[in-house]
Amino acid sequence: MTRIQQQYAFLTECLKLSEIFRQALLPNSRRRENDAEHSWHLCLMAITLAEHSNQPIDLARVLKMLVIHDIVEIDAGDTYAYDTARMVGQYEREQKAADRIFGLLPAEQRTELRACWEEFEAKQTPEAKFAAAVDRLQPILLNILSGGEKWREHGVTRKMVVARNQHAREGAAEVWAYAQSLLDDAVARGLLPAE
Amino acid sequence: MTRIQQQYAFLTECLKLSEIFRQALLPNSRRRENDAEHSWHLCLMAITLAEHSNQPIDLARVLKMLVIHDIVEIDAGDTYAYDTARMVGQYEREQKAADRIFGLLPAEQRTELRACWEEFEAKQTPEAKFAAAVDRLQPILLNILSGGEKWREHGVTRKMVVARNQHAREGAAEVWAYAQSLLDDAVARGLLPAE
Repeated sequence: MTRIQQQYAFLTECLKLSEIFRQALLPNSRRRENDAEHSWHLCLMAITLAEHSNQPIDLARVLKMLVIHDIVEIDAGDTYAYDTARMVGQYEREQKAADRIFGLLPAEQRTELRACWEEFEAKQTPEAKFAAAVDRLQPILLNILSGGEKWREHGVTRKMVVARNQHAREGAAEVWAYAQSLLDDAVARGLLPAE
Repeated sequence: MTRIQQQYAFLTECLKLSEIFRQALLPNSRRRENDAEHSWHLCLMAITLAEHSNQPIDLARVLKMLVIHDIVEIDAGDTYAYDTARMVGQYEREQKAADRIFGLLPAEQRTELRACWEEFEAKQTPEAKFAAAVDRLQPILLNILSGGEKWREHGVTRKMVVARNQHAREGAAEVWAYAQSLLDDAVARGLLPAE
């Protein structure tokens, strides 16, 4: 296969990301959001909110991470943030998926995109911290906009949301503070219990 | 409103991009692709195929353009590439949509993202030419993968596909050449007529 054929095979395979559905509901149609449109919205959030990153960031690297961060879920499936049972074996499932899917690419590109995904997963660099913050804040926004239905369905409280997502503070403290004010408001409106 | 409140209002409004459906079918579920997942796939294409750009490009700018390029369709709707009747008034509809939607942002950010969108539309810079190429090639890929159903439904021929999309050559000649070989193969397989 030529390089371009390998790249097309990868791009074709990745279209399956539109078939991986998350828990969060889209506020207008009230259908579950899929990973492809989720990844797009995270990119838009990163572009719009970049000024609130705690540290200077290279936006191109953040966007690359966000575009590819969920591709492993084509094989490994989505793991809901509050489903601790499903988290067992998640690391191994996702590593195996990364081997197969990034493995469709030409060798040095495979290495580069795999490293970009591993950087996102490790949450150590300023870019990965900001990308992770945006990834944590987006479902909170969606849950609030859709009236908290999925939170109630899964018995999620404000305390759980904060415990699970507070590392968003390490990437974008101002945005995390704003999200907490939205959560306070959601509790006041009865969308989720405080504890 | 604070800056962050304006930014959240914009990000909330833009979730509607998931409700704008295009003509092209996703190859697995065979449902119509929406603008949000389309925009995501274009970003993945740009990352993967950047080496084939005719000219050196700033990938961050390409990705920004691709993330926002269809936002105006929230108000203006999608215009199918072969629907010449629907193209009447498209420019005015999209300008009005850009006024409203980018207008949700803080002033200088509104100006910046509007300029980014106008740059994409004008197709003059190396980044805009490459982004436009990717935007033209992606539906060809989807149509081939889904067996040409939408092409046949709309009476589209290979000649029409080439006439409508050949400016992709200005952004990425090698990728356009590869797309033409895929079109030859599609004609040979009976997915669309040559003329």
